[in-house]
Amino acid sequence: MTKMNRLLITGANGGLGSVCRDRLGHLATTLRLNARKGLGDARPNEEIVYCDLGDKAAVEAMVEGCDGIVHMGGQSVEAKWDTIRNANIDGMFNLYEAARKSSTQPRIIFASSNHAIGFHKQSDRLDARSVTRPDGLYGVSKVFGEALASMYHDKFGIETASIRIGSCFPEPVNHRMLSTWMSYDDMVQLIERIFAVPRLGCPIIYGASANAASWWDNREVAYLGWQPKDSSEVFRAKIDAEMDPPPADDPTAVYQGGAFCADGIHED
Amino acid sequence: MTKMNRLLITGANGGLGSVCRDRLGHLATTLRLNARKGLGDARPNEEIVYCDLGDKAAVEAMVEGCDGIVHMGGQSVEAKWDTIRNANIDGMFNLYEAARKSSTQPRIIFASSNHAIGFHKQSDRLDARSVTRPDGLYGVSKVFGEALASMYHDKFGIETASIRIGSCFPEPVNHRMLSTWMSYDDMVQLIERIFAVPRLGCPIIYGASANAASWWDNREVAYLGWQPKDSSEVFRAKIDAEMDPPPADDPTAVYQGGAFCADGIHED
Amino acid sequence: MTKMNRLLITGANGGLGSVCRDRLGHLATTLRLNARKGLGDARPNEEIVYCDLGDKAAVEAMVEGCDGIVHMGGQSVEAKWDTIRNANIDGMFNLYEAARKSSTQPRIIFASSNHAIGFHKQSDRLDARSVTRPDGLYGVSKVFGEALASMYHDKFGIETASIRIGSCFPEPVNHRMLSTWMSYDDMVQLIERIFAVPRLGCPIIYGASANAASWWDNREVAYLGWQPKDSSEVFRAKIDAEMDPPPADDPTAVYQGGAFCADGIHED
Amino acid sequence: MTKMNRLLITGANGGLGSVCRDRLGHLATTLRLNARKGLGDARPNEEIVYCDLGDKAAVEAMVEGCDGIVHMGGQSVEAKWDTIRNANIDGMFNLYEAARKSSTQPRIIFASSNHAIGFHKQSDRLDARSVTRPDGLYGVSKVFGEALASMYHDKFGIETASIRIGSCFPEPVNHRMLSTWMSYDDMVQLIERIFAVPRLGCPIIYGASANAASWWDNREVAYLGWQPKDSSEVFRAKIDAEMDPPPADDPTAVYQGGAFCADGIHED
Amino acid sequence: MTKMNRLLITGANGGLGSVCRDRLGHLATTLRLNARKGLGDARPNEEIVYCDLGDKAAVEAMVEGCDGIVHMGGQSVEAKWDTIRNANIDGMFNLYEAARKSSTQPRIIFASSNHAIGFHKQSDRLDARSVTRPDGLYGVSKVFGEALASMYHDKFGIETASIRIGSCFPEPVNHRMLSTWMSYDDMVQLIERIFAVPRLGCPIIYGASANAASWWDNREVAYLGWQPKDSSEVFRAKIDAEMDPPPADDPTAVYQGGAFCADGIHED
Amino acid sequence: MTKMNRLLITGANGGLGSVCRDRLGHLATTLRLNARKGLGDARPNEEIVYCDLGDKAAVEAMVEGCDGIVHMGGQSVEAKWDTIRNANIDGMFNLYEAARKSSTQPRIIFASSNHAIGFHKQSDRLDARSVTRPDGLYGVSKVFGEALASMYHDKFGIETASIRIGSCFPEPVNHRMLSTWMSYDDMVQLIERIFAVPRLGCPIIYGASANAASWWDNREVAYLGWQPKDSSEVFRAKIDAEMDPPPADDPTAVYQGGAFCADGIHED
Repeated sequence: MTKMNRLLITGANGGLGSVCRDRLGHLATTLRLNARKGLGDARPNEEIVYCDLGDKAAVEAMVEGCDGIVHMGGQSVEAKWDTIRNANIDGMFNLYEAARKSSTQPRIIFASSNHAIGFHKQSDRLDARSVTRPDGLYGVSKVFGEALASMYHDKFGIETASIRIGSCFPEPVNHRMLSTWMSYDDMVQLIERIFAVPRLGCPIIYGASANAASWWDNREVAYLGWQPKDSSEVFRAKIDAEMDPPPADDPTAVYQGGAFCADGIHED
Repeated sequence: MTKMNRLLITGANGGLGSVCRDRLGHLATTLRLNARKGLGDARPNEEIVYCDLGDKAAVEAMVEGCDGIVHMGGQSVEAKWDTIRNANIDGMFNLYEAARKSSTQPRIIFASSNHAIGFHKQSDRLDARSVTRPDGLYGVSKVFGEALASMYHDKFGIETASIRIGSCFPEPVNHRMLSTWMSYDDMVQLIERIFAVPRLGCPIIYGASANAASWWDNREVAYLGWQPKDSSEVFRAKIDAEMDPPPADDPTAVYQGGAFCADGIHED
Repeated sequence: MTKMNRLLITGANGGLGSVCRDRLGHLATTLRLNARKGLGDARPNEEIVYCDLGDKAAVEAMVEGCDGIVHMGGQSVEAKWDTIRNANIDGMFNLYEAARKSSTQPRIIFASSNHAIGFHKQSDRLDARSVTRPDGLYGVSKVFGEALASMYHDKFGIETASIRIGSCFPEPVNHRMLSTWMSYDDMVQLIERIFAVPRLGCPIIYGASANAASWWDNREVAYLGWQPKDSSEVFRAKIDAEMDPPPADDPTAVYQGGAFCADGIHED
Repeated sequence: MTKMNRLLITGANGGLGSVCRDRLGHLATTLRLNARKGLGDARPNEEIVYCDLGDKAAVEAMVEGCDGIVHMGGQSVEAKWDTIRNANIDGMFNLYEAARKSSTQPRIIFASSNHAIGFHKQSDRLDARSVTRPDGLYGVSKVFGEALASMYHDKFGIETASIRIGSCFPEPVNHRMLSTWMSYDDMVQLIERIFAVPRLGCPIIYGASANAASWWDNREVAYLGWQPKDSSEVFRAKIDAEMDPPPADDPTAVYQGGAFCADGIHED
Repeated sequence: MTKMNRLLITGANGGLGSVCRDRLGHLATTLRLNARKGLGDARPNEEIVYCDLGDKAAVEAMVEGCDGIVHMGGQSVEAKWDTIRNANIDGMFNLYEAARKSSTQPRIIFASSNHAIGFHKQSDRLDARSVTRPDGLYGVSKVFGEALASMYHDKFGIETASIRIGSCFPEPVNHRMLSTWMSYDDMVQLIERIFAVPRLGCPIIYGASANAASWWDNREVAYLGWQPKDSSEVFRAKIDAEMDPPPADDPTAVYQGGAFCADGIHED
Repeated sequence: MTKMNRLLITGANGGLGSVCRDRLGHLATTLRLNARKGLGDARPNEEIVYCDLGDKAAVEAMVEGCDGIVHMGGQSVEAKWDTIRNANIDGMFNLYEAARKSSTQPRIIFASSNHAIGFHKQSDRLDARSVTRPDGLYGVSKVFGEALASMYHDKFGIETASIRIGSCFPEPVNHRMLSTWMSYDDMVQLIERIFAVPRLGCPIIYGASANAASWWDNREVAYLGWQPKDSSEVFRAKIDAEMDPPPADDPTAVYQGGAFCADGIHED
């Protein structure tokens, strides 16, 4: 795997963004970190860029010179339309325009979400060709993002891996996460594989560890060579001890998107 | 088929919108027509509402009391991002929020587009489950619209038929349209069927007549009972006489979306 | 098509059985007609056999010497378990045992039913490989019958065409039947084709005319060469004039099996 | 996993039934054991109910108060029709009627069988959507049982897991069982998972360990989180030493159902 | 449709070749006709080239300057290996090498055959993605030809339409041909469409008219816009009157390739 | 597994052939080794037969008396047409004719190649039903060989396992081989399984170890019970250290067939 010159991590102050900051340093000579605030001091080999993804000019300046982007920025849970629209729709457009105009044509990892397909039943088995069924405005914005990435690939050759992240936390904390959990180790290895393959294309990847009760089948992206190593199963007894499983008609037991499916529109 | 009380037609001053105005009067006691301007005098049984789809309050007032909506409004070709975003993304959100809040829970026809799948090759055969491959910002906005409709159906029960319109004109005028053409008669019959079935769900429909060289298979929506009657084939000789077919490597010969696939981003 | 020596029609006093009696005479030198009673006088070329399908010895005697069987007998709507079990389960077993033991190894048409798949949604498109979803005890008995036929084919070489009959009446009389109707002419032509092909195998066939709003796809049995000629569409205006379509949440608008899906178990 | 109040095990004196008796005690406060005879003394936490599944009233009394049923009862190999019909057809109906009428709406595990699909070739790869091809009256009765379970789920909400059991013995004892073997440990873990998931639905599951030469693919039920741990491979050398593999045209080498496929009808 | 300068027809003295000679004159300014002998006098606009397809230099000279090739030449029924190999294997290689080296990069129609898939059962429904199952050395040579065409397309951009011709005669003359017949009119229209589309690619096409009992589904090549107009059905009564249908276990009733499946290897 | 009397290994002086010679001795009482030259001294239990596969009579004599054939002979990389045709087309025909005429009807392993499907993209996931896309004359000859094997199976019952060998070497030596590598151990175990199953049929098998980044899915041949044990992943760091990955548009990064796809025709 060739080391990149400069890898941009957006949303670097967030949960996954800070994991990326800590663990992706080996992928590039320089990590360029972006957030609106709160990134602390730059470590050696780090560059800090504060800007809003809605600021087109700033985004273009930030993207220039980057070989890779891990786009963890934007709104990461359900919110009011204006919030979603600004962060995940306008922000995505600005990022992809910046990538198109840059001299370096960066390869992009887009943090999509299981909420792009959240209204599928938990008894359904999905793969990369399954139809989308977003479970809220947030999920709709992720479908938008995947579509935008697809278009920039077909039209301009920019490669994106859209990862439909399940639940990426230190450990699963409820029964649904026994199906959706992705360990940090598995996420890091996935990111490494995405930047390692000579030709990425524009794949859809389900971001989950090798959980026993997974709903998702990544066979379409076997060429990446990603083999998650962890399984949520080691946490099952602990979760069983801490809580009852949800009732059978609870959204967290019915739908892949869980509680998001029961959420209403966030109004002003 | 029960007559509706009030059917809203957005974009009623546009090409398809004015066809709908002229030919859908039998579907409802009152046609409510919307555009930003240029609708002329109201005929008997018509109501005219001038407003911008970006005006949330105005849209809510307009949608209230409607049993059905034929949403032909919005931006209908590629344009700058701001134009697309305002008309097709914010506008769609406003329309669906208005539908959700209305007392009448209207059934909606969404004028989606073949440009949602435009980067598929012309030698590919698509159906309603095919993955989207938008061919520009306009096409991306249509994927967004279909995703939004899907979410409002799963979450709030609002039914939408998303019609991926091919080329709806009096007659096909080039070789690509021999595959994509939909006659006005077939469009009208499709709209009738969509409002006639007791239970619509949220289907994806390819809007094309019974053309010999169609790329699209509507078997997934056979339950609608729509059987297009026209075929572009009767116009083939005329087109052959008027122009050469495109070169084999021309986007209009390669991609389903035709020239849109060669279009760049419309910049400010 | 070679004329059969003797064609047995069970249930020959029923609705479809009497149509078969009237219209299948050209297929065999002798029609052997079976019911428990009420078959009137034998016409020339007819033999009448009164017996209950539950009477194993009588069924064996009746089947001996027949080259073909059109099995319209048995219970044809939902009923109490004992009725269903005796007529459609024990009766089927007796008929197939008789066929196995006979010297003539008759080819069999089994009047299965759309109620074997009745709990599929009307927006689903089914073919011969779709999973069964029976909508009552009657439907379960039809799944049993198809399974029995499959086993006698694999084990003993007896060929059966299982026709999942939709609604076979002079004309459709409600909105659901616009999808499920099969004309008598189309049924007769189907029966002719089944006895004409040199090698039948053990196919599942959906018994419906060429209706615009069909839910069923017979591509797997294209080799039969059956092309239904009629369409329910000519009756649509009449039905629309006579009744409102069902509400969207009515079983007759939701499920392929219609009202059967709302039926409870018939208890003693 | 919430402990059940009362778990009914039918056929508790049989091979698998007695394994269940010994190893499922942790799933419920009380095990209710059923057979026609031969259950010995009740252990603490056990209740013994002797009755025939053909006795409708007795079955209703037995099912009342149970939260779960492991239905191992009935006829478990090929037999005369009367035996099959009484035990596996009438008996199933009585059990499901009892479940429907009970106040506890038990979740049911139905011991279906590979003989429901036995006439598929061993070189075919099956999953839960494969068409059934029963290999005898016994297999037909299992197709009936699965259909009955499907109907009671769609109509009354009763959840059933139909396990198409391969060969559940202490160890595989011939070459075919190298493909079909399920260890007791894997069976027990499967039963645990079926009662643990909040929402079961009505799945078809192939009951086999993680054998190298499996014919069956359980991806459709990945949501159960069952991961069999054992493999028949450790017994291969022993079997190879004890016997020659079957000839290529022997039913045990051709069909998934093995010798059952060569079996005739058991006549009186 | 642009007229070609020069269209080569190989095998122009054969059954289909002479039909092509008579009916494809409108496609090109000059028809170049090839056979080893027996082409009579050249008509205006015709060029006659006598050569063996095994003569590499002669084939190169013949192909040079042609815009299109209808390759009807070669061995058209089962034969000894040397005959098949020389005509259909070496001959194909020479033709494609000539096309690759030519200045005109001709579009090619390859007369493949149903015998490339002849061992599929008549009750199977095939499309362009079905696996090949050749029924003799002739059929194997056709699989070779399709593979060679595929490689020259992927590697050198030469476009070929491989037509798996059923039975192309003035009319069907036995029961199997009711499924496989292609009328001359439908063949001619297919050839016209293949040369008319701007971009052909390298499709597999089943060459049969719109027969009721077709085994083949051309949906994958719908983009060609070919809609066969004839049906074998009008000849059914005549064939039924002239002969009995084949016995059920006759190869002509079992396999799509008919009698070829029963043929042995033609030995020296 | 019954020991064979005589197992023929063709190409026994080649890379894989000599591995087979060294490691398959336990499968048969006698190994018959074939090449044109260079086999050294016969070891105990070995027979050496020097002949050219183009010599029909010699091949027939060589095949007679063999129960199994591992056909590693022929041309194993791209070459001039005459070389390919003689070795892989005429040679295959001679071998299968010899098998057909022999008294022992040997089971055959045919060393097919990934170059039969080499023009599929590396991001495509293939299985045994995927369409072939050969990447050169060598690949076309392998499609021919698979077709010939299919025909001899359907017509004469000769069983063949066609292994589409990826890269079978002591270890992978470049990035593409991380996907295509098959260890010698895994190849040997595959050959053992092919000769062990009572009924083989005529399967297509992808010959690769359990590599993380595999492009191939062997689920269709799960019945063989082959479970490769090795993975290329242990060599990744070494390869990364020794060379850069190929550029994204290099054939070795784009196509499954790698550099073969960029190869021209080998001319005289």
